[in-house]
Amino acid sequence: MPLMKSWVSTANAPDHPFPLNNLPYGVFSTADLDPRCGVAIGDMILDMQSAEETGLIALGDLPLFDVPFWNEVMEAGPQIWAALRDRLTALLAEDSPERASVEPLLVQMDAAEMHLPFIVSEYTDFYAGRHHATNVGTMFRGPENALPPNWLHIPIGYNGRASSVVVSGTPVRRPWGQLKSPDHARPAFLPCRRFDIELEMGAIVGTPSDGPITVAEADANIFGYVLLNDWSARDIQAWEYQPLGPFQAKATATTISPWIVTRAALEPFRTDTPPREFELLDHLKDCGPMLYDIELEVTLAPEGKLATTIAQTNYKEMYYSAAQQLAHHTTSGCPMNAGDLLGSGTISGAAGSERGSLLELSWGGKEPITLETGEKRSFIEDGDTLGLHGHAQGDGYRIGFGDCMGQVLPALEDPFAR
Amino acid sequence: MPLMKSWVSTANAPDHPFPLNNLPYGVFSTADLDPRCGVAIGDMILDMQSAEETGLIALGDLPLFDVPFWNEVMEAGPQIWAALRDRLTALLAEDSPERASVEPLLVQMDAAEMHLPFIVSEYTDFYAGRHHATNVGTMFRGPENALPPNWLHIPIGYNGRASSVVVSGTPVRRPWGQLKSPDHARPAFLPCRRFDIELEMGAIVGTPSDGPITVAEADANIFGYVLLNDWSARDIQAWEYQPLGPFQAKATATTISPWIVTRAALEPFRTDTPPREFELLDHLKDCGPMLYDIELEVTLAPEGKLATTIAQTNYKEMYYSAAQQLAHHTTSGCPMNAGDLLGSGTISGAAGSERGSLLELSWGGKEPITLETGEKRSFIEDGDTLGLHGHAQGDGYRIGFGDCMGQVLPALEDPFAR
Repeated sequence: MPLMKSWVSTANAPDHPFPLNNLPYGVFSTADLDPRCGVAIGDMILDMQSAEETGLIALGDLPLFDVPFWNEVMEAGPQIWAALRDRLTALLAEDSPERASVEPLLVQMDAAEMHLPFIVSEYTDFYAGRHHATNVGTMFRGPENALPPNWLHIPIGYNGRASSVVVSGTPVRRPWGQLKSPDHARPAFLPCRRFDIELEMGAIVGTPSDGPITVAEADANIFGYVLLNDWSARDIQAWEYQPLGPFQAKATATTISPWIVTRAALEPFRTDTPPREFELLDHLKDCGPMLYDIELEVTLAPEGKLATTIAQTNYKEMYYSAAQQLAHHTTSGCPMNAGDLLGSGTISGAAGSERGSLLELSWGGKEPITLETGEKRSFIEDGDTLGLHGHAQGDGYRIGFGDCMGQVLPALEDPFAR
Repeated sequence: MPLMKSWVSTANAPDHPFPLNNLPYGVFSTADLDPRCGVAIGDMILDMQSAEETGLIALGDLPLFDVPFWNEVMEAGPQIWAALRDRLTALLAEDSPERASVEPLLVQMDAAEMHLPFIVSEYTDFYAGRHHATNVGTMFRGPENALPPNWLHIPIGYNGRASSVVVSGTPVRRPWGQLKSPDHARPAFLPCRRFDIELEMGAIVGTPSDGPITVAEADANIFGYVLLNDWSARDIQAWEYQPLGPFQAKATATTISPWIVTRAALEPFRTDTPPREFELLDHLKDCGPMLYDIELEVTLAPEGKLATTIAQTNYKEMYYSAAQQLAHHTTSGCPMNAGDLLGSGTISGAAGSERGSLLELSWGGKEPITLETGEKRSFIEDGDTLGLHGHAQGDGYRIGFGDCMGQVLPALEDPFAR
């Protein structure tokens, strides 16, 4: 599929993240407008609340855009999803006869503040990148026991904390936590010393389910994708995680990019999962090309300095797709709801420069990386801004995600002071 | 504190679960009434929606009882909690001058169907019973390594699935899941064979927090308590839980009792935690008597047969209190919301008859228990109804929780059939 041209001319540049082929969904506000749903097109945002109020968008009997989140659209179901995308495409296409009605509803993206695009119902984080799991397992358990025995058979995951999900740009405070260093007999309550990122994609459930679903059904239930940074306190995690898994180490914040890129927009970029070492059980088998070819990048900028790209990889490196993770999530009968967010797990490629966490990039802190500023990093330092960036490369256009940024603030001096 | 007498005479019986001293909060419906908030008094329920509509209850400027859940009361804050309890006590006390106005708003509890009393924002489950952790650890890792190294220093827990929380009386379908028996090289997708209960108390967060809080603050933020059965698929758990903790094994259902017993009602029953093997770090230290003396019981009734009491224990057996768990939950900065539910972890006493799970009662299935019907049980069989029961024993009265019941239905023949 080639570039689809829009009368919003900035959308037609071949390297622009938001062409007519994309149409991602966000929530924005301006000095004049309360938070509301919007659709990105080039350097503009279409104000969906106004578009519905003026009758330009009319889908079904009830309003969908009288609230500042996309959950109501998700709950409206796949037919509405398709009808909305068709309508937006018609309104914004180069030859649209309705340009004059739409133009007054566009807002400069520069002038907008972005908010969480949906209410996160619940948040689950997986561990489905084989290179990442092998790297981390090698560091902690040695190369022979790198992958847990279940890893090649189920996409293992844990429930995270929905209340901790924030939108790109939100500062992240270095957490305190209970730690135990190997050279001390007792734990202590201290600020995290090994604060890290995890480069992930987040899949957003659109259609609820109330019992086990197949991989094909799971795929159809996914509304869209975001970039996701699963901030991780490695020293807190090392002490707390046996035997119940990560808890406070992952509860400080999880940052997502502000635009939901729909499954429909990503359709041309589907790719196969990697070869299977063991045949997957029937309920988890691939039902077509399950991943997407999405180029990903991590940047680190010390305070007031230029950013260095510290990793480059691709979502197609995953072993399990979001659909397989969602299908697994339902096997026990677990009800899933619109707005459930599923983190892919850290995405790392095979090469050293393709690793999606500082833990891997600095090999547990033993091999600090050097930034373009000359500074070295094992883990995040106060003031650092970490960024995730991603796009799918089409023929003369890109499907961009918008950046997923967060600056790390120093730990509170006294966490209990009010 | 002695029994406080009510003009609802059934509430004055010394063994009745719902005297004036209790006043627990639920959500009910009848043939004539849509789901709405209610307060239990004796064998009656006070219809709070009608009480507010008629002006008998008037707290603050906005209505609190126009919705069928108690979250709005929680969010109204501790002053409203106290004012509400005072007003209810006045309305229902033996000498109330307003009896004639209140009486028409009472509904027979027998005629009511109970619903979830609040919207579960997020659900966390802890592992804070020392006897339970020691028993399970001994079975899985041997007596020398029974307690994980972190256990005596932090109340470890994992995030569960809020969408799986159901009210007492909801049938629970035996789940399918990926299992691996020790005598097979590969896992299989099968119905759970080792389905179990966990006897727990659930603490409900009332006041939100957005950063680390002290144990005293955490205690003040708790709105009330319920009985909680954390249904557990032991064979699914054994295969999936390394290294990320329990996931699908705990996602089929978690049943709670229908009445929120307020912290205020439990105040006379506070008890100390057990002696500490290691002094707790400052941020987790006890700030007074942190537990409650609540007698607990588990019953099992095979389909169509009488129930046997299979375990009796007490909430005061816990090592960590709900306030300490909540304080730990916030250490990393994790935001907590009204309606967050915190499971205590399985409550087991030291004796064999005081164990709060079949895993412990049958010692991993090796020593099946015998029911009063003569039948034996290692784990739950289809058709079994499991019940949790609890009360605090006062001087001539009881603070009861209402039962927490669930019948286990057979696994679906084909989980993917629609």
